[in-house]
Amino acid sequence: MAMENASSPSLSPPTLFTYLMTIASPSMIKHAISDAAIKIKNIALDDPRRVIHSLKVALAITLVSMVYYLQPIYNGLGDAGMWAIITVVMVFEYTVGATLSKGLNRGFATLLAGALGVGAEAFGSLFGPTIKPIVLGFLVFFLVGAATFSRFIPSIKKKYDYGVLIFILTFSLVAVSGYRVDKIIQLAHKRLSTIVVGGLTCIIISICIFPVWAGENLHKNMVKNLEKLASFLEGFGNEYYRVSDGDKSFLTSYKSVLDSKATEESLANFAWWEIGHGKFRYRHPWKQYLKIGVYTRQCAYHIEALSGYLYAKDEIPSEFQKTIQEACMKMSSETGKALKELANAMKLMVHPLSSSVHLENCKKAVDDLNTTYKVSMVEDQWNILDNISVIAATSILVDIIKCVEQISEAIEELSKQAHFKKPKDKTSDEAGKPHFLHCGAVKPVENEQELVTVTVLSGDEVLHEAIN
Amino acid sequence: MAMENASSPSLSPPTLFTYLMTIASPSMIKHAISDAAIKIKNIALDDPRRVIHSLKVALAITLVSMVYYLQPIYNGLGDAGMWAIITVVMVFEYTVGATLSKGLNRGFATLLAGALGVGAEAFGSLFGPTIKPIVLGFLVFFLVGAATFSRFIPSIKKKYDYGVLIFILTFSLVAVSGYRVDKIIQLAHKRLSTIVVGGLTCIIISICIFPVWAGENLHKNMVKNLEKLASFLEGFGNEYYRVSDGDKSFLTSYKSVLDSKATEESLANFAWWEIGHGKFRYRHPWKQYLKIGVYTRQCAYHIEALSGYLYAKDEIPSEFQKTIQEACMKMSSETGKALKELANAMKLMVHPLSSSVHLENCKKAVDDLNTTYKVSMVEDQWNILDNISVIAATSILVDIIKCVEQISEAIEELSKQAHFKKPKDKTSDEAGKPHFLHCGAVKPVENEQELVTVTVLSGDEVLHEAIN
Repeated sequence: MAMENASSPSLSPPTLFTYLMTIASPSMIKHAISDAAIKIKNIALDDPRRVIHSLKVALAITLVSMVYYLQPIYNGLGDAGMWAIITVVMVFEYTVGATLSKGLNRGFATLLAGALGVGAEAFGSLFGPTIKPIVLGFLVFFLVGAATFSRFIPSIKKKYDYGVLIFILTFSLVAVSGYRVDKIIQLAHKRLSTIVVGGLTCIIISICIFPVWAGENLHKNMVKNLEKLASFLEGFGNEYYRVSDGDKSFLTSYKSVLDSKATEESLANFAWWEIGHGKFRYRHPWKQYLKIGVYTRQCAYHIEALSGYLYAKDEIPSEFQKTIQEACMKMSSETGKALKELANAMKLMVHPLSSSVHLENCKKAVDDLNTTYKVSMVEDQWNILDNISVIAATSILVDIIKCVEQISEAIEELSKQAHFKKPKDKTSDEAGKPHFLHCGAVKPVENEQELVTVTVLSGDEVLHEAIN
Repeated sequence: MAMENASSPSLSPPTLFTYLMTIASPSMIKHAISDAAIKIKNIALDDPRRVIHSLKVALAITLVSMVYYLQPIYNGLGDAGMWAIITVVMVFEYTVGATLSKGLNRGFATLLAGALGVGAEAFGSLFGPTIKPIVLGFLVFFLVGAATFSRFIPSIKKKYDYGVLIFILTFSLVAVSGYRVDKIIQLAHKRLSTIVVGGLTCIIISICIFPVWAGENLHKNMVKNLEKLASFLEGFGNEYYRVSDGDKSFLTSYKSVLDSKATEESLANFAWWEIGHGKFRYRHPWKQYLKIGVYTRQCAYHIEALSGYLYAKDEIPSEFQKTIQEACMKMSSETGKALKELANAMKLMVHPLSSSVHLENCKKAVDDLNTTYKVSMVEDQWNILDNISVIAATSILVDIIKCVEQISEAIEELSKQAHFKKPKDKTSDEAGKPHFLHCGAVKPVENEQELVTVTVLSGDEVLHEAIN
């Protein structure tokens, strides 16, 4: 009987409860809860800054609301205190740049729209109380329409979208408030000051307590993306020739780079608002990061095409494939190394000197490959049909080398724009190798037992090495 | 003297004006204004729905504010009217789905947070006036922190992000409002009703006046993306063999597909909220569109790799390249046609029957290519080194055919899920060809001069053709 009721569409609450208890046994509920708990724990462990951000927002709102709640002047939470809470909820974002962008947009838009709203009220009052609502209605309609349309203009949408929204809101509120102008100004002053208090609370907490900088995130993202591509390329040769077994996550991790555009653009956008922080000065060339991102994705597209040849065949490599094995493996591993060096140079913010060595090696490997092709064509009568995919894979590898060269040039440009320092610790690299002018052993006057090697370099570095 | 002042950092307003007039001559200002006007005009002409949307928002805000402004009860724009305006500004979005999503989120979040807030107030009052603020502070801190963290959970972020934001806002406002519970309930009722009025205004205007449906946009976007890839592939053969000149925009238009993921996902997300509209029923399988999108981008990545071989050489096609010209051109044009048919079937929402014919032709062309490879290897001693890029291009083309097959399967699946109708007008296609059962000429009884051909088909269609 209970079961019959349970399946009918109209359930009385107790029957519904019985029904739910039938389909959801205690063990199932327990299972679901523990599942959710594990998921939440993973989200927190994945990036502990998320927990910190949540605490920061909670702190900001508690602070703002308590200040207004405890203040006896406002007699409970008055209108003004409400605006402080609204501001904190709407303005506090995950990164400092986003918070600054929203806070400044909100502040200036409120100021501008408030002034225009007061003007509109005063203008409307000229027409007398009967026509005033009509005049104000037209003004609101016209300005709101124009402002909404301006949100479709890319340059406004990019940086001032939230500002325009707040402009529309504040202008409409002030223009049709129905108060006399002097009362409006008094109200506007109070409201603006609470918005400033709310905005400043957000900005100060956002910057001072474990700040999350959009610029730093962008920088780290770019490095991570380059490293992902590098790992694929470094591992590709071994995988293609079935040389190694082991962790194969590097074969798919590059895929996230394919869709990195939206994240990079919004981070670069927020970074534009940020003050100098850590290794990044105010007006760090964030735009150049977007260029590097374009080339990185270009490289990822080619890697996506290349990865199709990895899983194409389960059989052992053909004779021809073995002939070009050395050149092929060198091409892929050296491109990978070049990318890794570039990623490392970006990470440490030093000139990417050593990557050019690997790029040179790549070019040598391409020459070797071409020679092998020439020789093998004359010597062997191999079957071209069986080796189309091999030839295609090498051709895509050559294209990838070109992409990496573009990435290298873009990072070179960035290192100039951002004044990356020349690496000093890597004197053993070809490009950074110091020129020895003199090198010899001299006898110090004071201690005749000790020989000191003095090396005079072309630069301003002098190495002293003690030899017993 | 004026110039000296102008270059100094502290400018008095009149000098600043002179300075601005010096650097900005009237013709320059005129030029800048006409430039901006052209840009704005293009944005409007590009998609006139933008202008309509701006007018719709303006109308909604004017309506809501006028209702509250004119109503004598509220004595000017009271607190409640303000919330209607805030709701319209925050909730009215470009597409119906986005507006519904925000409106429903706002409504339910306000309800839930309001109830919890009243509960928190009542709970706080149990402790007496001294401890109450501390208890409330802890409650706000804890709930706001938890709610903020929940915004990092992907499933919540995707659909309920705005709801959580409004929950935080309303709960904080209500919990620390400092009013007695009965007064809060009165206030909450008033505020909730204005929010409902604001939200309903948005939703009604959004749906009734030239609605922009996220689902329809997603559908059109997918079709457009498929068409872009199709145009590239249809034109690729001619371009590769320098057969034609003319408009070459099709060679780059596919690039927008590469970055289509973010747009598609947000549109699919908003489409989930929409009621049935036009050809789309409620619960149209929007998720399947995302799958088609994945394969479409996969195809675009390969096209990106392929396009590198277009500009690689300015010289005339090599002998070998000419040998495979027919197969190569057929492969690319037939893949293009298959994609175009698929796009067309999606556009008309009919079963994609005729695309399979083109896919069959593709496979035949691949067989032809392989035969040519075999023959040419035996007959000619051509130089492999000169033709690596040609071989690579054909290999990528073969990969693209595989991608198109995946797209075809995904669209087939969509056509099943969304109950696309079988095309009836295309009886000439192989798959839809009717089976002739009988066909003969009969003499009608009434008019002995006239022969009538009667064709009896396997289906329910009978063709009558009069022959004089």
